[in-house]
Amino acid sequence: MPSGSKTKAQIWVVENSKKRLRQDHITTEEPLEIRLTSPRRTVAVTMRTPGADFELAAGFLYCEGAISCKQDIQRISYCVDKLVDGKQHYNIVNVELRQDLIPDLQPLERHFYTNSACGVCGKASLEALRLRGCPVIFSSLMVTPEIIYSLSDQLRAAQGIFAATGGLHAAGLFDAQGQLLHLREDIGRHNALDKLIGTALLSDELPLNNHLVMVSGRSSFEILQKSAAAGVPIVCSVSAPSSLAVSVAEEFGITLIGFLRGERFNIYTGSQRINIT
Amino acid sequence: MPSGSKTKAQIWVVENSKKRLRQDHITTEEPLEIRLTSPRRTVAVTMRTPGADFELAAGFLYCEGAISCKQDIQRISYCVDKLVDGKQHYNIVNVELRQDLIPDLQPLERHFYTNSACGVCGKASLEALRLRGCPVIFSSLMVTPEIIYSLSDQLRAAQGIFAATGGLHAAGLFDAQGQLLHLREDIGRHNALDKLIGTALLSDELPLNNHLVMVSGRSSFEILQKSAAAGVPIVCSVSAPSSLAVSVAEEFGITLIGFLRGERFNIYTGSQRINIT
Repeated sequence: MPSGSKTKAQIWVVENSKKRLRQDHITTEEPLEIRLTSPRRTVAVTMRTPGADFELAAGFLYCEGAISCKQDIQRISYCVDKLVDGKQHYNIVNVELRQDLIPDLQPLERHFYTNSACGVCGKASLEALRLRGCPVIFSSLMVTPEIIYSLSDQLRAAQGIFAATGGLHAAGLFDAQGQLLHLREDIGRHNALDKLIGTALLSDELPLNNHLVMVSGRSSFEILQKSAAAGVPIVCSVSAPSSLAVSVAEEFGITLIGFLRGERFNIYTGSQRINIT
Repeated sequence: MPSGSKTKAQIWVVENSKKRLRQDHITTEEPLEIRLTSPRRTVAVTMRTPGADFELAAGFLYCEGAISCKQDIQRISYCVDKLVDGKQHYNIVNVELRQDLIPDLQPLERHFYTNSACGVCGKASLEALRLRGCPVIFSSLMVTPEIIYSLSDQLRAAQGIFAATGGLHAAGLFDAQGQLLHLREDIGRHNALDKLIGTALLSDELPLNNHLVMVSGRSSFEILQKSAAAGVPIVCSVSAPSSLAVSVAEEFGITLIGFLRGERFNIYTGSQRINIT
């Protein structure tokens, strides 16, 4: 059986210089190895919270450009290698690709952010996304501020695990009416988003041109890169975006919203999609 | 000149369904390539906030086990490669190691979390740390709850940049009296800690057996792995630790504190170092 997303722990609570013992739950963190069966190779080892592992693998491969649709995947399964300790089978996911597919694994070589023309820079990072065929997002989606306001509360309300451990990042997918479609959680924000996009990929919902994504915490390059890969026109976060996140949003036509708290938010790019009369 | 840690931006603030334009600062995020000059190779490309780049490179190499002391480094410099666009020189750091040093670069091959004995698991991750010679921490450090209470406020007060952009993680190094010695910030929590440990390494302060470290946000495996490498006996964070963070803390004799807010915190491991009468 796969590990759960929570692990029991006995902890000391210190308050007003007194301590008491408490049974608590903490977020499970374990490595996940993503393997391709042919060509047979490990493409990633990431620390993640167990759960939605197949979606994580699918979303990771999609966001890195190794696959371009659900049909590129023939089968995803946990490892059954006899040389591997049985308990660890659930920390290794085998992905069997379509037989005639020759995946472009170069982006996975960790040279993704470098470009011989200008070395290492934000511009090269954007250029790399473009070279991988990541298109500018075409979407006529427009939403009201009220729809944006509602996302944060919905995300928090749906985060059942969060309430128990306080240890998980969340990524939520919403439709044009602001209805929550999927929620995925992980100790890593990028993993939560890979799980979310993998879920959409495996349920044939891509591209997400008429959807909104909201993540807890900050927006970094990775969050925007993955959103661009999935065609998401509006990306929101609880906290601040980075400079490169703003550049990716600008370049790929994404509306980027930050500091979404209560009836207040900042628009960094693409304000035309927010309908303010 | 290196990029600053802040980038100017013009944003829309939406409040009560009205929007107004504002000049704002956002956290700079740009890739940093860490290169060894001999053997000549790129060992990492990480998205980071510019600043303390040499410390980041030094701390990264130290925490990954490629070097074991300051003397292993002969020289750190920004790239001056003529083939690289001048503006990008500050996104590439060259590290020249001691000539007779043959660094163990295997941990950098991304196979760090795997182990043939049991596949991929938390146990293998711990085992890998042990195999790299990471010692159990021997420290007689004991502190009062009052010292712990003070860390969080000090960290926040020192985070000058945080106030402006709200976009940075912080890692602070404190002495046994709870005095802040160094603060490093970055868009990535692991980068902030690499910068901090790199700073200590370059100022000959390692091992940190009589010190406390506090990070903003959560404690994950990586945070504890880096703290163990630097010999830190007490690690605190604002938010929750993961299960694997607790395991690393237990295994290497680290006192792990979470949810440190006001006059309250949780002790996950090593409560003997907190002096409660």
